[in-house]
Amino acid sequence: MTFINKNFMLRTETAGKLYHEHAEKMPIIDYHCHLVPQQIAENIRFRDITQLWLVDGHYGDHYKWRAMRANGVDEAYLTGGTKSPWETFEKWAETVPYTMRNPLYHWTHLELSRVFGIDKLLSPATAREIFEECNAKLATEEFRGQALIRKFNVEVVCTTDDPADDLRYHKMIAEKPFGTRVIPAWRPDKAMAIEDPKSYKEYLAKLGEAAGKAIDSYTDLVDALKIRHDFFASMGCKLSDHGLETFYAAPYKDIEIELIFKKVLLGKAPTCAELDKFRSAFLHDMAVMDAEAGWAQQFHVGAIRNNNSKMFNLIGPDTGYDAIHDLPTAAAGHRFFDRLAAEDRLAKTILYCLNPKDNEVMMTMAYTFNDGTFPGKMQFGSGWWFLDQEDGMRKQMNALSTLGLFSRFVGMLTDSRSFISYPRHEYFRRILCDVVGADVESGRLPASEMDRIGQMIEDICYNNAKNYFNF
Amino acid sequence: MTFINKNFMLRTETAGKLYHEHAEKMPIIDYHCHLVPQQIAENIRFRDITQLWLVDGHYGDHYKWRAMRANGVDEAYLTGGTKSPWETFEKWAETVPYTMRNPLYHWTHLELSRVFGIDKLLSPATAREIFEECNAKLATEEFRGQALIRKFNVEVVCTTDDPADDLRYHKMIAEKPFGTRVIPAWRPDKAMAIEDPKSYKEYLAKLGEAAGKAIDSYTDLVDALKIRHDFFASMGCKLSDHGLETFYAAPYKDIEIELIFKKVLLGKAPTCAELDKFRSAFLHDMAVMDAEAGWAQQFHVGAIRNNNSKMFNLIGPDTGYDAIHDLPTAAAGHRFFDRLAAEDRLAKTILYCLNPKDNEVMMTMAYTFNDGTFPGKMQFGSGWWFLDQEDGMRKQMNALSTLGLFSRFVGMLTDSRSFISYPRHEYFRRILCDVVGADVESGRLPASEMDRIGQMIEDICYNNAKNYFNF
Amino acid sequence: MTFINKNFMLRTETAGKLYHEHAEKMPIIDYHCHLVPQQIAENIRFRDITQLWLVDGHYGDHYKWRAMRANGVDEAYLTGGTKSPWETFEKWAETVPYTMRNPLYHWTHLELSRVFGIDKLLSPATAREIFEECNAKLATEEFRGQALIRKFNVEVVCTTDDPADDLRYHKMIAEKPFGTRVIPAWRPDKAMAIEDPKSYKEYLAKLGEAAGKAIDSYTDLVDALKIRHDFFASMGCKLSDHGLETFYAAPYKDIEIELIFKKVLLGKAPTCAELDKFRSAFLHDMAVMDAEAGWAQQFHVGAIRNNNSKMFNLIGPDTGYDAIHDLPTAAAGHRFFDRLAAEDRLAKTILYCLNPKDNEVMMTMAYTFNDGTFPGKMQFGSGWWFLDQEDGMRKQMNALSTLGLFSRFVGMLTDSRSFISYPRHEYFRRILCDVVGADVESGRLPASEMDRIGQMIEDICYNNAKNYFNF
Repeated sequence: MTFINKNFMLRTETAGKLYHEHAEKMPIIDYHCHLVPQQIAENIRFRDITQLWLVDGHYGDHYKWRAMRANGVDEAYLTGGTKSPWETFEKWAETVPYTMRNPLYHWTHLELSRVFGIDKLLSPATAREIFEECNAKLATEEFRGQALIRKFNVEVVCTTDDPADDLRYHKMIAEKPFGTRVIPAWRPDKAMAIEDPKSYKEYLAKLGEAAGKAIDSYTDLVDALKIRHDFFASMGCKLSDHGLETFYAAPYKDIEIELIFKKVLLGKAPTCAELDKFRSAFLHDMAVMDAEAGWAQQFHVGAIRNNNSKMFNLIGPDTGYDAIHDLPTAAAGHRFFDRLAAEDRLAKTILYCLNPKDNEVMMTMAYTFNDGTFPGKMQFGSGWWFLDQEDGMRKQMNALSTLGLFSRFVGMLTDSRSFISYPRHEYFRRILCDVVGADVESGRLPASEMDRIGQMIEDICYNNAKNYFNF
Repeated sequence: MTFINKNFMLRTETAGKLYHEHAEKMPIIDYHCHLVPQQIAENIRFRDITQLWLVDGHYGDHYKWRAMRANGVDEAYLTGGTKSPWETFEKWAETVPYTMRNPLYHWTHLELSRVFGIDKLLSPATAREIFEECNAKLATEEFRGQALIRKFNVEVVCTTDDPADDLRYHKMIAEKPFGTRVIPAWRPDKAMAIEDPKSYKEYLAKLGEAAGKAIDSYTDLVDALKIRHDFFASMGCKLSDHGLETFYAAPYKDIEIELIFKKVLLGKAPTCAELDKFRSAFLHDMAVMDAEAGWAQQFHVGAIRNNNSKMFNLIGPDTGYDAIHDLPTAAAGHRFFDRLAAEDRLAKTILYCLNPKDNEVMMTMAYTFNDGTFPGKMQFGSGWWFLDQEDGMRKQMNALSTLGLFSRFVGMLTDSRSFISYPRHEYFRRILCDVVGADVESGRLPASEMDRIGQMIEDICYNNAKNYFNF
Repeated sequence: MTFINKNFMLRTETAGKLYHEHAEKMPIIDYHCHLVPQQIAENIRFRDITQLWLVDGHYGDHYKWRAMRANGVDEAYLTGGTKSPWETFEKWAETVPYTMRNPLYHWTHLELSRVFGIDKLLSPATAREIFEECNAKLATEEFRGQALIRKFNVEVVCTTDDPADDLRYHKMIAEKPFGTRVIPAWRPDKAMAIEDPKSYKEYLAKLGEAAGKAIDSYTDLVDALKIRHDFFASMGCKLSDHGLETFYAAPYKDIEIELIFKKVLLGKAPTCAELDKFRSAFLHDMAVMDAEAGWAQQFHVGAIRNNNSKMFNLIGPDTGYDAIHDLPTAAAGHRFFDRLAAEDRLAKTILYCLNPKDNEVMMTMAYTFNDGTFPGKMQFGSGWWFLDQEDGMRKQMNALSTLGLFSRFVGMLTDSRSFISYPRHEYFRRILCDVVGADVESGRLPASEMDRIGQMIEDICYNNAKNYFNF
């Protein structure tokens, strides 16, 4: 029997039934990912499996990089640019057997199986033949970017875009549709990043240009962002996203925010208290824009980033040197949403947390602001980044279930920039069915209600997201 | 087979044996709840299932309200006062199928089964007949308040009472006993709530009147509380309770506390540092009173309350807008108990925590102050509020077991103001037996020791609480 | 069937196979423990099981003490010095049946079985015969200290030693080898403990004497420690250890550290900010020494100690009054390791945490500093102290697996001062095999890869530690 077989991850008969009769058939709505619009628009052809999996120019898979570094692989093979694709691939093949119990072991073999039809396990013994078989396939039309997405019945993809982006590749895609809608999503993190005045001013110039408006004050900034927000909306955007260490909801006066902004324009770094106030104002104003536009807003909370300054200086951000933070979130988070609720300007909201200890805090925070206007308005999002694995997913599902309505969950997203990460939806669905199947078989859910339970599975896989985002 | 069947929640043969031979037969001691003494004394007759389950005047079941709001139910059906009992009930019936995996799904069907003998699942299809059957039964004598309590073999109920309360309904009950002892418990939260000087002064007037003593200083306050504490003791009270965000154990001088108290009497809000000192002094003085009276003290730690100010202004506290907090507890908590231990004035103590991440901290904190004077003197209490569900209970049981003596656990309480929440004791006991049964079947506990293990189950269900509180 | 039988803890056939074919046969490397070198060197003969298990002069087993106090045993039986060995043992025998679900229940019966060949369960009914059988055996040569270690196929033991220690007993042992290497490990906690100037100055005198150098400045301190570090290295030492509440990485200037040091020498207690700076400097300098010597460094993070001042004044530290702390660790921890990485002076490192909520933070922190120079260079260590039990181990194994390379884990250590704690390695290995066996049987690991999986088990049990420490 192959490793990735029909009942992979499914421990009970009911789990199998739920997966094969309900989950498997549902299309995918991948409402948050980091695919590069240009690569979609240009229908990228991958040189080889090393580019697709490991090193794509300046980017690459930081999950795999972390694993390889931990396995003693020299940096030269990863970001050095001096090794051949085969040499890098071989190092990955050597590492794979050491990733047992890590999601990479599952993802790797799911991707080999589902994308390439290869059911061999990757190891030094199989590395060469797998390398060649993948590369041969990648040279064909059916393995170019758009076909890879189509293969997985993906209805909608939301990318992650900066407000200054001209969305030209989204236009290109819209003009030459390939069967999957590709929609931009609004991620204004850089517009909040006043902690580095020099980069911030450069960014403001770019943003001002995009908005057709000079940005000399905080009011200008908000106006410029509103212009871009409207433009994003005109391009089909329906949701925003913020990457935060924690929530910010300090009291502030408008004049204070203007003064902080001026200070930063003068090249001076803000104090911690100023940062807190500025972020509080900025996030509030962004949330108001989302509410007024009828978008959903997402908050990804709890990463501590760029912790290895030696490597940051060498190879930049998002290269595998981020980690899980442990800041408190409850007090500021509640104040933040409370203000929006009091002003009747609280958009649909999804909270993601990176530290599993915060699951229950985030979940009860979200549910404190449901107001009966839309089923599942406030969501506790799926296990994110480091938590996008069975243990993390189960904890997220259990926190959501025991403290709220699992049935209303909008489900999985890839959060990936890989064209072949869609099997993670399958992975999520198998775990989902395994969890619920066990509940049925232990009598925690009534076996007489299999219709309702099957419907719940289909809803979490697809219908809930479809209704929630209304793309 | 019905959903709530003989072996509901019990996955192994041993679990079944433990439940049916040991747990099931034990009486209930519900040592912490929020039943309204007047409703007991007057032997309340419920108008209908909507009053009993969903909306009782200004009160209601905030668990259900949160679920309904999350399911898109308009507030009008909950607290609006404009919908008929049937209309509200119908909305709940629509919500129930969406609560799968939430404890409400289990509680609802346990209560229908155990209280009303109804084994149908609640849904829109069954709503009307269940509504009518429940209402018909509620019109009979066997479904009035006292009979509902008696039905569940409840030996003792401890309510939760303010020091200013005259306990007149406890007197009424004592004069006309109905088979279950109803004992007051001391909850002086309002006497600590100096953060709102206006409400606090109003409260002091009430308390002073009850104590027959004007309260013009902190010393007066403590004296007045002592008078009421003695009165509560004379009414059979044996335990206190505090609802806290975290512990407080700042150093202070008596004169500082007096000055803070004066400031508040003058209508000025205290600073954070003053609040911390005041709470430190107050909680210490309360703990000393409990120790001297030989009571047990309870600390419910970790809620962040009234987070939705819009709804707070409309419908007040305890309406479903509280959540789980994430303040640190270890440092202050240890200082608090250390002082009491050093003064030999540490009462029996039960710590409850609302954030499961704190289970291990709370548990090792409690056990750091066991002194050999009474088995199980320092307790880590059962899963509380949001954690009163299978996942929360298992985590509490595992933290308690691996870091202390599970055998000495005083077990379950309802913490509820519902007359029909007693099936939660059954729920707890089934989970308890499921946990221990699995240990036996996997050889983690010796199958040869079933007598001892059965005894442990009976102790946790009943005997430990009986010995501990000595009502 | 006896309780501690062939398949104790092993729930699946695969788990049994992994344990019996792979784990069981591997030697033990106990790379962190608190055995007293003098007791090893002098080949201690235990007076009785009470000395071995419960009370050994001023020391004793604080796990058992906590359990006995919680069970209502008077302190006189533990540290009072007034009760006979039998009286104390009898109290323990009364307590044991109440420890079901606590690791003590398993450890006790594993030790009786593996050390003494006794398969009876300890209880009041069996106490007398077990007491006598153990004592009779302890009077024989095969139950003296060195033979007890040999019995468990222990290849290496690392003790925990103060820099001022002359290591005379390590010399004695090296001169009369008994089959297990006994190596010192460097634990400079006292050299950092400036919070108590009086004790600190006494300690400096001792350290200065050992180093042959007066210590009048912080520079002197570091120099003296370097002399001792070199000496430890000459005695075979390969690893250090620090017991910390959290990490420290405040910015500081050298002159500030010198001034803080002078202040302490003058008998003045440092402020919190000064403590933070001093610890930051000290730990950095220690880490540099370890890197330069090619040692591995260990950080045990998260205890809050000596919380019961009444008992601390009576019987001192390490007597069962410590607990789990809840300080944040991410920000300072990352800064601490970042500086070392930037300076290319980051030694192999093992992080242990005491609060299970921090598992994921610690794990991702460690892995943020892997640099490809050695497989598994940065380790997240095994469940420590309170977490050295099945629930704690599973959480540690899952955090390590899902966020890193389980295959590279250096595995178990006893962290114990008991001569008969080695069955805890067996306990760990059985849990390890139970975890991995379940993965295989549920298809989460491929059954076709049993060779690789068996190798992973052997590596975690022994080979990884052997390669990592290179004793």
